[in-house]
Amino acid sequence: VAKRLEKFKTTIFTQMSMLAIKHGAINLGQGFPNFDGPEFVKEAAIRAIREGKNQYARGYGVPDLNSAVAARFSKDTGLVVDPEKEVTVTSGCTEAIVATMLGLINPGDEVIVFAPFYDSYEASLSMAGATIKSITLRPPNFSVPINELKAAVSENTRAILMNTPHNPTGKMFNVEELNAIASLCIENDVLVFSDEVYDKLAFEANHISIASLPGMYERTVTMNSLGKTFSLTGWKIGWAIAPPHLTWGVRQAHSFITFATSTPMQWAAAEALRTPDSYYEELKRDYMAKKAILVEGLNAVGFTVYPSSGTYFVVVDHTPFGLENDVAFCEYLIKEVGVVAIPTSVFYLNPEDGKNLVRFTFCKDEKTLRDAVALMKERL
Amino acid sequence: VAKRLEKFKTTIFTQMSMLAIKHGAINLGQGFPNFDGPEFVKEAAIRAIREGKNQYARGYGVPDLNSAVAARFSKDTGLVVDPEKEVTVTSGCTEAIVATMLGLINPGDEVIVFAPFYDSYEASLSMAGATIKSITLRPPNFSVPINELKAAVSENTRAILMNTPHNPTGKMFNVEELNAIASLCIENDVLVFSDEVYDKLAFEANHISIASLPGMYERTVTMNSLGKTFSLTGWKIGWAIAPPHLTWGVRQAHSFITFATSTPMQWAAAEALRTPDSYYEELKRDYMAKKAILVEGLNAVGFTVYPSSGTYFVVVDHTPFGLENDVAFCEYLIKEVGVVAIPTSVFYLNPEDGKNLVRFTFCKDEKTLRDAVALMKERL
Ligand SMILES: CSCCC(=O)C(=O)O
Ligand SMILES: CSCCC(=O)C(=O)O
Repeated sequence: VAKRLEKFKTTIFTQMSMLAIKHGAINLGQGFPNFDGPEFVKEAAIRAIREGKNQYARGYGVPDLNSAVAARFSKDTGLVVDPEKEVTVTSGCTEAIVATMLGLINPGDEVIVFAPFYDSYEASLSMAGATIKSITLRPPNFSVPINELKAAVSENTRAILMNTPHNPTGKMFNVEELNAIASLCIENDVLVFSDEVYDKLAFEANHISIASLPGMYERTVTMNSLGKTFSLTGWKIGWAIAPPHLTWGVRQAHSFITFATSTPMQWAAAEALRTPDSYYEELKRDYMAKKAILVEGLNAVGFTVYPSSGTYFVVVDHTPFGLENDVAFCEYLIKEVGVVAIPTSVFYLNPEDGKNLVRFTFCKDEKTLRDAVALMKERL
Repeated sequence: VAKRLEKFKTTIFTQMSMLAIKHGAINLGQGFPNFDGPEFVKEAAIRAIREGKNQYARGYGVPDLNSAVAARFSKDTGLVVDPEKEVTVTSGCTEAIVATMLGLINPGDEVIVFAPFYDSYEASLSMAGATIKSITLRPPNFSVPINELKAAVSENTRAILMNTPHNPTGKMFNVEELNAIASLCIENDVLVFSDEVYDKLAFEANHISIASLPGMYERTVTMNSLGKTFSLTGWKIGWAIAPPHLTWGVRQAHSFITFATSTPMQWAAAEALRTPDSYYEELKRDYMAKKAILVEGLNAVGFTVYPSSGTYFVVVDHTPFGLENDVAFCEYLIKEVGVVAIPTSVFYLNPEDGKNLVRFTFCKDEKTLRDAVALMKERL
């Protein structure tokens, strides 16, 4: 294996999902719904396949999808976006992330991330040869330590890579934090790469795209995807929105990473994004009910549950149960209890920082959530 | 844009396909069929979508597809392959290529390629920080200059990246060439990365995977895809087959590039690969008829047509028509004749080497091929 990937293991999501299958445990680990996506989106894909939309798409996206992405983003942010010059369709947000890194970051450039972070960030930055600086968000509120962040910015800082709503913590970056980040970026000529795949799963306040702050659009790559919002995580349709000069870098990397993304799925994605807002309202209502079941259950079991205001994840402190760290706790949980969670230490540069925390997902049907809670009540 | 991608332009395929649309020209440029893939494969995808196979696949592939890939490769090569440890499903062969480079090549490693080469090779090698050495295959036969190749191997040579049947020339590496490459690799402990996406489009002799030569499997990554063989280039399903120690590198890169590939399409791909051999026989017959139409036509138009024994491409010398180079010729062909071909100079480290050659594809219905020939006869 090449040096750039030496330190990485099989992704924790794969590890835990395999263990779930092996032990017949209830999987509240990897973030994929155990219910299906909407019929109208599935039917749109079927129609596209039947209509023969099965050859290479345009590299940066089927025109219809570029337009639908731009329209939704404009509606959400008030920004005007050119679908032809500022939207790049990718094979999931994971590809958007790596294409952004490989397309815009040079070896030795510093990139600041907030820990805990989605594991592909570190690997993507490593593939791009970036120097990673990590700022830890700490419980209970996972607030951004603005002074630490300020101190981390140097003349080599090329970008801040952020994620709101935030996986794994469920934290949403608030207006003060976003403004502070924006000022810092503008003052120091730093870019922002913002992963917003959970934007429609914002339970308390509306999601705010940092690109919508004054002076920020021109320095921001906003990344999103279909999978989380439409419960079709296996379709792997993502996108990056950025001004033309940044889009150029993303597209160049993308065109040599996957060249183009599944054509029929793109047509279906376009149809999905044109859905009325009532779809998102209902999705949010459903997830709030699921979240209530899980959070109430986890509290009753005896965890310290940290507030999650977005995403379909919640992070808890497992130390009341006396296991030595997150990995040991998750092992015990799988083998002795029959429930899978995700240890968080892999989401930090320093694994110690995550040793008290594990993540549960509530993107499962209500019965599954209740069953998991019941098992934990009985066996923990 | 990052330095690693600075020298690259919008891919020539995208450029030419856009010009085709703009000028209403017949597109014999980018290699995608203008006919649809088989009904049974499309129906398999539709079934998978309806059955709710819409969440994340296992990162390295849906088990059924890993098995089908291993079974087909075993049948073709006589090698026994472990579907769980030696097959990685990717988002098209393009992703397999970049994952192989990022997963196995370190900055400064030398990789030898044969020019003309598919454009993503150079970009992928650049993303991996490799030093590229290019060996030019020259008309009329595009034979491998074994002595040049031997001279190019140094102690820093990590791999040879090859492609048979070869895009753009249609050349197939023969037994002598493959043996010479194999000996060289074994003697010098060099890996082979072999792109074999056109393996089922071998018109004169059977395709030979270099992995099947003695001592080669353990040092080879064989890459292939669904798109060309099943006329579904837009589905973007590819794979890499390699022994476990090389598969590890490919998988680690893959898991942070796209993580996983479209789930329903993978189920359909598995079904496609289980098709009886008669499917491939018919495909080959169809393509031989198309090839005959195009080659006969190009000869009649007055090109020097070089022999193509595989792929759905043929390369010609355009100099009888007096244009200064391949790019100028292709421009004239689009604007004055109404036909799109691909200039080949972008497929060489030194563009001069390709200035006499342009590539036509015959992956179009027979009428389209006849119409294109008629236009060229009339207007060239
Ligand atoms: C790509 S697998 C991880 C899925 C996910 O987003 C998560 O569980 O965090
Ligand atoms: C990925 S676009 C190029 C398609 C193709 O394989 C070719 O035309 O060479």
